[in-house]
Amino acid sequence: MNKVAVIMGSISDLPVLQDAVDVLKGFNIEVEVDIVSAHRTPEKMFDFGKNAHTRGFSVIIAGAGGAAHLPGMIAALSPLPVIGVPVKSSNSIDGWDSILSILQMPGGVPVATVALNGAKNAGILAAQIIGTSDKAVSDKIIAYKESLKSKVIEGAKQLKKE
Amino acid sequence: MNKVAVIMGSISDLPVLQDAVDVLKGFNIEVEVDIVSAHRTPEKMFDFGKNAHTRGFSVIIAGAGGAAHLPGMIAALSPLPVIGVPVKSSNSIDGWDSILSILQMPGGVPVATVALNGAKNAGILAAQIIGTSDKAVSDKIIAYKESLKSKVIEGAKQLKKE
Amino acid sequence: MNKVAVIMGSISDLPVLQDAVDVLKGFNIEVEVDIVSAHRTPEKMFDFGKNAHTRGFSVIIAGAGGAAHLPGMIAALSPLPVIGVPVKSSNSIDGWDSILSILQMPGGVPVATVALNGAKNAGILAAQIIGTSDKAVSDKIIAYKESLKSKVIEGAKQLKKE
Amino acid sequence: MNKVAVIMGSISDLPVLQDAVDVLKGFNIEVEVDIVSAHRTPEKMFDFGKNAHTRGFSVIIAGAGGAAHLPGMIAALSPLPVIGVPVKSSNSIDGWDSILSILQMPGGVPVATVALNGAKNAGILAAQIIGTSDKAVSDKIIAYKESLKSKVIEGAKQLKKE
Amino acid sequence: MNKVAVIMGSISDLPVLQDAVDVLKGFNIEVEVDIVSAHRTPEKMFDFGKNAHTRGFSVIIAGAGGAAHLPGMIAALSPLPVIGVPVKSSNSIDGWDSILSILQMPGGVPVATVALNGAKNAGILAAQIIGTSDKAVSDKIIAYKESLKSKVIEGAKQLKKE
Amino acid sequence: MNKVAVIMGSISDLPVLQDAVDVLKGFNIEVEVDIVSAHRTPEKMFDFGKNAHTRGFSVIIAGAGGAAHLPGMIAALSPLPVIGVPVKSSNSIDGWDSILSILQMPGGVPVATVALNGAKNAGILAAQIIGTSDKAVSDKIIAYKESLKSKVIEGAKQLKKE
Amino acid sequence: MNKVAVIMGSISDLPVLQDAVDVLKGFNIEVEVDIVSAHRTPEKMFDFGKNAHTRGFSVIIAGAGGAAHLPGMIAALSPLPVIGVPVKSSNSIDGWDSILSILQMPGGVPVATVALNGAKNAGILAAQIIGTSDKAVSDKIIAYKESLKSKVIEGAKQLKKE
Amino acid sequence: MNKVAVIMGSISDLPVLQDAVDVLKGFNIEVEVDIVSAHRTPEKMFDFGKNAHTRGFSVIIAGAGGAAHLPGMIAALSPLPVIGVPVKSSNSIDGWDSILSILQMPGGVPVATVALNGAKNAGILAAQIIGTSDKAVSDKIIAYKESLKSKVIEGAKQLKKE
Repeated sequence: MNKVAVIMGSISDLPVLQDAVDVLKGFNIEVEVDIVSAHRTPEKMFDFGKNAHTRGFSVIIAGAGGAAHLPGMIAALSPLPVIGVPVKSSNSIDGWDSILSILQMPGGVPVATVALNGAKNAGILAAQIIGTSDKAVSDKIIAYKESLKSKVIEGAKQLKKE
Repeated sequence: MNKVAVIMGSISDLPVLQDAVDVLKGFNIEVEVDIVSAHRTPEKMFDFGKNAHTRGFSVIIAGAGGAAHLPGMIAALSPLPVIGVPVKSSNSIDGWDSILSILQMPGGVPVATVALNGAKNAGILAAQIIGTSDKAVSDKIIAYKESLKSKVIEGAKQLKKE
Repeated sequence: MNKVAVIMGSISDLPVLQDAVDVLKGFNIEVEVDIVSAHRTPEKMFDFGKNAHTRGFSVIIAGAGGAAHLPGMIAALSPLPVIGVPVKSSNSIDGWDSILSILQMPGGVPVATVALNGAKNAGILAAQIIGTSDKAVSDKIIAYKESLKSKVIEGAKQLKKE
Repeated sequence: MNKVAVIMGSISDLPVLQDAVDVLKGFNIEVEVDIVSAHRTPEKMFDFGKNAHTRGFSVIIAGAGGAAHLPGMIAALSPLPVIGVPVKSSNSIDGWDSILSILQMPGGVPVATVALNGAKNAGILAAQIIGTSDKAVSDKIIAYKESLKSKVIEGAKQLKKE
Repeated sequence: MNKVAVIMGSISDLPVLQDAVDVLKGFNIEVEVDIVSAHRTPEKMFDFGKNAHTRGFSVIIAGAGGAAHLPGMIAALSPLPVIGVPVKSSNSIDGWDSILSILQMPGGVPVATVALNGAKNAGILAAQIIGTSDKAVSDKIIAYKESLKSKVIEGAKQLKKE
Repeated sequence: MNKVAVIMGSISDLPVLQDAVDVLKGFNIEVEVDIVSAHRTPEKMFDFGKNAHTRGFSVIIAGAGGAAHLPGMIAALSPLPVIGVPVKSSNSIDGWDSILSILQMPGGVPVATVALNGAKNAGILAAQIIGTSDKAVSDKIIAYKESLKSKVIEGAKQLKKE
Repeated sequence: MNKVAVIMGSISDLPVLQDAVDVLKGFNIEVEVDIVSAHRTPEKMFDFGKNAHTRGFSVIIAGAGGAAHLPGMIAALSPLPVIGVPVKSSNSIDGWDSILSILQMPGGVPVATVALNGAKNAGILAAQIIGTSDKAVSDKIIAYKESLKSKVIEGAKQLKKE
Repeated sequence: MNKVAVIMGSISDLPVLQDAVDVLKGFNIEVEVDIVSAHRTPEKMFDFGKNAHTRGFSVIIAGAGGAAHLPGMIAALSPLPVIGVPVKSSNSIDGWDSILSILQMPGGVPVATVALNGAKNAGILAAQIIGTSDKAVSDKIIAYKESLKSKVIEGAKQLKKE
């Protein structure tokens, strides 16, 4: 069975990354959450990155702020698809630092970057990746997209009434 | 078998997107290339987006420049994972417009964004996604990462000699 | 008679877009408001864009935040003039993402972009467009410009007294 | 009959603005071109702005670079819809200065801003505005949009062959 | 005797511009304050700009926010030195719009730009300009600079004690 | 008689600063040019800044690129009005570094900043400052502004003919 | 014995710079704190910069905001390594001004720049520099890095329990 | 004896980093150059970072472009002072990506960042660090600063003659 890892550089990133966890649980996908700091626990990061694909993970979601090196380093260490979530941390320069540190990876080592604080989309993207080989999940994604639609249509109706 | 679509807004984006095609062919993954313009052929884009998952594609790579709407619109229309490649086109403002138009998608509709002109990484990422359920491909990715390493080690040796 | 559509990607954009509605009503121009999300209701957007010019609309005002694709996609689908309002939404990067996603349209498909959160100006611009063939409206615009002047002159007088 | 004014701050902006003239002529719309500098000929600008609507113009296209004040000042002086074209001039800071000087107009005085160097789109937008009351022009716009489509479809076919 | 005009586009800019007025009064320089909006009262701006040098003014301080055209247009109309104060207004994009609209003037028409919200420095600069021909004022500037020094030295002493 | 100093951090800035010298000579204003580097000749900079007002200078024009400290340090040392010219040097980040290093001076120590590479405007501004007390110079400025106008009018006529 | 100077342009920068002081005291390194303003006390800055290396200092930490000239000027005056701390002051443009004013020094005069408001890292960097010749300090740095690790590991354990 | 390591992510960065090597050799400081890629040779990077301080190095200079993780990861792994050189590589976004990826390190793990492409200053800074405990080197730095001065003075004299 497919499993997703959600890791982050600091416990202070959890409120942002929790969105990814919630989305994945909503899709009935197994999730493991861990704190893995590129700068403070480089050895743990190395172990995690080197072994994730042998521990049953299919996708890794990594979130970090500022000079955000965790997603790119995990992508360097693991053959799995890595989704990077730029986090707008307290001393960030409007989020530009984390976006560019995650997005602008050199040729050979991709990170699938989502929007600033876009952990919800990281969760959906991980589900879509699993859905490429798991019909139950891809059906749920199709249903999820329909539910997005319904909410807008409902809102539009409400607006018309008022 | 898994197939990847590589689409772009304009034939002028082909020199950038070709890198994705080459990488995927190097991994023995079937690729289809097409021109699909969000702004000039919206109906074709709709058809493409709505039907890609029933036509045997597992992943869609979409590249566009300026106010780049193709990746996000395909992500709106398809349940498949969509990889967006920001292209630095001629009248782009240093690439910021295409990056932000692709990256900053709203919650619910992710685009896996890679670096500016990073089509090579889009190809590798697509292979990694396919590799989550295809051991032959994931083995090739592990081998590819080893080859990246060897080239650097070789270069370093050469440098030491000089 | 001329009619203006004011559409937006999410009900949360209404507080910004309401300014356009109010201005147009002040000019006695008929307005229809709707929620049309490029990313969550692409089919509704398609219908809206393809048919707006046959439903009596002369101008479309479209507001959206983040990777704002609604104005550009409506411009792709409709022959009408489309006015885009960049909205500074909660996870926006200071508004740069919505500005560039709306402004930097490729050759062939213009969006008349106004300032960040500039829905009031979108309403005035729509009135000016209608005023090109409706003398009653163009007279109101001339009067409106005079009223802007009067308020400043009045304020300056007040300042002199103090 | 409707007429469009295409004005610019300096003769050096003509290569950019010529695109607007060409588009408008292609739509059989009468165009007048003039050099009107906000900073070097403020009196001429005043005369032009105050009288354009009595001289048979329906729309004004104004292009300028750097601290680009011409579009906004014309919008202050004229009740007509004003389309602003940010020009990337030689000492511009990547075009940001002209974009922001034209786009960020205060409430009450809109400028319909198009992309950096987007004079072609300025011409199309002017035609769309005229098309709101001139069926011949709006038919041509519909035809123009079809021609955009055909070219992409043709290009895509060519690509498939190779 | 030398006189300084302090003008601004809107009464809402007064809290920022007041710093210039206070500094000038502290130097015993006569000041006149007025509201002159480039976009809402262009005729008043024209009159002001054309006649300021015949009304006894030596220097004009002009503050404005967003697409800030007042300082540059006054510089176009008047032979006097014009000091521009970029104001960070509510819908400004972090102040970049007002800074670039004021700073990036074309060759031939300078605006002496000070820091964002830097009205205090505009006042001092106006005094320095008057000081080039008025020894009483230039003596006060020298004294003012000494007082800046004393405050820092005093603060440093206080810090040492603690 | 009034004299203007034109100083720059490096001889490589001379091609930019020469515009200021030429303008001033055109106004018959005495100019002295010198190389004064804040970072490489801080003692010379100190001497220059402390003594400029006793050596017959009325205005100082200082140009520098990158982390441009010369204009601000001269403004700290001298009671004279200081005009800063941001120079876009080779390793500059599009000129943003020199602009912000010169413009964003703290309260108490103004630098009259002109556009990126805007040395011509620095020269005109210096002449305008001198013109506040020298009628011959202020007459020349009025004439100069007329000549700007004539050239545009001439160009516009030429355009009409073609 | 090695001593570190922590200087800043204004007492209002102390809350930021205090982090450097605390870190250094934690490493048992002697610190001296002073207010030295490049723009308001240039003479004091000159004395400080010229003599710091003869007064027993090994490293200088200098913090400043806006057009931050203190770190670069101290680097011009002193042969010691200078660490610059960009401070996000009240009228700063999101900190870009202080970052670029400190970072973009010309060839020949380096400033070791740390993150925006990164005074803590400035303190650690100063300790690392001293640690290059003082084994007691370098041992403390190794221990400090271990303590960073432990805190993350502890936090990760806590997270697992919940 | 003190030794400096100069490492870079790719051989293509050598033309930039060579400046650091040349400066250090000019100061008679031993240098070792190596290619160490964070993303392609993470194991080599780990070994290098963990052992540099036991191999006789005092300072590490690390240069990288784009999402530049090498300097920060080395700083995470080594107790030595690490100097980061942002390199403006071919697909970089004007260098912003490498600057922010290197500069904005989290609290606890400093990187001493120099200007974009500022390898020369990295070399000087490394020498200054060594100079804190090696009088021969610190004397050379004092002499070097004098030589900078002489060149400017000489240039200024030349200018005066012409």
